[in-house]
Amino acid sequence: MKFEAIAVENIPLIHTGDNLPSIICKNLELQDRDIVIVASTVVAKAEGEIFRLEDITPGKIALEMASRNGKDARFIQAVLSRSREVLVEKPFMLVTTLAGHTCVNAGVDESNIEDGFLLYPPVNPDASASRLGQELEKLSGKKLSVIVTDTNGRAFKIGQTGAAIGIYKIKPVKHWIGEKDLFGKVLEVTEEAVADELAGAANLLMGEGAGGTPVVVIRGFDYYCGEKTFIKEMYRPEEMDVIKKGLRCLQKKLNKKLN
Amino acid sequence: MKFEAIAVENIPLIHTGDNLPSIICKNLELQDRDIVIVASTVVAKAEGEIFRLEDITPGKIALEMASRNGKDARFIQAVLSRSREVLVEKPFMLVTTLAGHTCVNAGVDESNIEDGFLLYPPVNPDASASRLGQELEKLSGKKLSVIVTDTNGRAFKIGQTGAAIGIYKIKPVKHWIGEKDLFGKVLEVTEEAVADELAGAANLLMGEGAGGTPVVVIRGFDYYCGEKTFIKEMYRPEEMDVIKKGLRCLQKKLNKKLN
Repeated sequence: MKFEAIAVENIPLIHTGDNLPSIICKNLELQDRDIVIVASTVVAKAEGEIFRLEDITPGKIALEMASRNGKDARFIQAVLSRSREVLVEKPFMLVTTLAGHTCVNAGVDESNIEDGFLLYPPVNPDASASRLGQELEKLSGKKLSVIVTDTNGRAFKIGQTGAAIGIYKIKPVKHWIGEKDLFGKVLEVTEEAVADELAGAANLLMGEGAGGTPVVVIRGFDYYCGEKTFIKEMYRPEEMDVIKKGLRCLQKKLNKKLN
Repeated sequence: MKFEAIAVENIPLIHTGDNLPSIICKNLELQDRDIVIVASTVVAKAEGEIFRLEDITPGKIALEMASRNGKDARFIQAVLSRSREVLVEKPFMLVTTLAGHTCVNAGVDESNIEDGFLLYPPVNPDASASRLGQELEKLSGKKLSVIVTDTNGRAFKIGQTGAAIGIYKIKPVKHWIGEKDLFGKVLEVTEEAVADELAGAANLLMGEGAGGTPVVVIRGFDYYCGEKTFIKEMYRPEEMDVIKKGLRCLQKKLNKKLN
């Protein structure tokens, strides 16, 4: 049992309107059941999710936050416009995005983009993954899965890892429910975050810097799924999220001190 | 640029005193700069970290917690004996272990072990990784890295991923400090949790159930490091850990309600 992770070489700098699926297919011959993993930065660029910082007018909340945490109010406004809840304001903004993903700055990025511009993550990452997947399948004639990834920090630990934020024809979580362990007992550990493990494996080859390779193919790991799948299946329901409850508790305490 | 993840087949059920390095070398010919990734369960079994539930006498704190969360007080005692702090008591025990790793139940496991027994994680996972690595290097004559892994849940998301808990001759975090992005700006995102991404990649082939393959080799990803390395480098310093602060805030509030 083995699989390969293959960086797709020679991907040029991506601009609005570029045909990513065609660029990918030109640089690697895809095979049946390949998992094509694409960094959200190039997806966002191809989709034109680029905004000029000076075109953003910060609202009241953004201005208040900026006075507290010293960040550019326009950048804060960009983050807020993609967020449904701010869990941490300072020293970094940890938010839950409109799509339900909890991450720093809602994925809004000042790196790998011209000065004075911001790169927004795809509005609906599953839809982006589907468009890529359908086009890649058409061009290659193969059955494929797609994962759109970002890099995220983690609780308790230093360092970011690749994380799945949008998927096509792959289940985000593998359920072991009812399966038995080596001694015939029903397993307690029942869910494996396969899409995130794949995103992390791909990120090992992607890099963050100027030598970045934003597309990686995982070959030989058979996890193709014919049905429509949704990344939100991986997001913990609010009522079960003890860490969010903790962060709200802390935020409340800080707000009391401020008032 | 590519790498392979290869499951080492034919690893038998492991018992106390078994020579893991020799078993691994018999089943796969290792190559220079391979990264050998071993599930902590088999490391713990080989090291004899197996305890009988009925031999554990719960102390006062374990008995109090058991009355609150309905778990076996002996199991709680087992978790407490490996923990330096309990961050969440209920509905699951989230603790920071003596080694500094924050995880559920301190990694104490009732799965994949005979009924009535508990499997403790290795006391010093870096030392376990070093012993494995040195012996593997001696047997194979190759330069190798080793990662001992567990599977852990994550904040905000459903599903577990493989995580590094002990390392040998591999850096846990890659620092991009000072490196430039595609547009020549110094990168803001500066740390990649390489050891955890590798552990996750390996976990894709390990499985949790009866068909488990506890050893996976990553080949072709050149990240060998000649120096001594420590997993604690990846643990976020207490004063910077906003999520721990949040969980303590919540715990305090719950304690107030109880009193």
